[in-house]
Amino acid sequence: MSTAAPQAAGGRALAHPAREEIRLEGVLHALSDPMRLAIVREMAAAETALSCSAFALPVTKSTSTHHFRVLREAGVIEQVYRGTAKLNGLRRGDLDVLFPGLLDSVLDAAGRQADRLGE
Amino acid sequence: MSTAAPQAAGGRALAHPAREEIRLEGVLHALSDPMRLAIVREMAAAETALSCSAFALPVTKSTSTHHFRVLREAGVIEQVYRGTAKLNGLRRGDLDVLFPGLLDSVLDAAGRQADRLGE
Repeated sequence: MSTAAPQAAGGRALAHPAREEIRLEGVLHALSDPMRLAIVREMAAAETALSCSAFALPVTKSTSTHHFRVLREAGVIEQVYRGTAKLNGLRRGDLDVLFPGLLDSVLDAAGRQADRLGE
Repeated sequence: MSTAAPQAAGGRALAHPAREEIRLEGVLHALSDPMRLAIVREMAAAETALSCSAFALPVTKSTSTHHFRVLREAGVIEQVYRGTAKLNGLRRGDLDVLFPGLLDSVLDAAGRQADRLGE
């Protein structure tokens, strides 16, 4: 998905940092929460854009919305409106250009930890 | 450096998580601060234990102490007393066993970002 330009859909668009605005510290912070890390793992496994409701998160809708917003504002995911739903996709291309290997090593580490802790 | 056992030096020892207690989320959070990321980069470049005063940080001593404590409690660094000074070393061995490639990919990403932003 393209990222720098605003997405026009029903007149609404969500703010995304352009690739060159993405900061490593922000990406690491976005990934440092267990719920957000779980969201990103699921997104990476799906390899396609998913609506927020596709994620079975044990939190309220407003908390869920917050987590998706943190991921979007850090440049980890792209969110676009499709009707009343938001579709979410990883910004893998942008992240891989800026920080080669980082996302994969975090996903690998998260998988190892989940295996180790039996989660 | 060994990590799980407390370090006896003048009767004082600092608490460290054992390797199996280190959590990915905590490591990412510890690395998500620009100052702490700079400390870790300097430590990785030094490849030897450094005293806190070896780092020229533009912050007060109490803020500096806070950042080192966050890194220690997350399992990213080991701190041992040598007289009145603390020596700091990366827990590279533990991190590489738990999360292979993660620390190197973060260090590489931090270096690329610093080059890109001219820092």
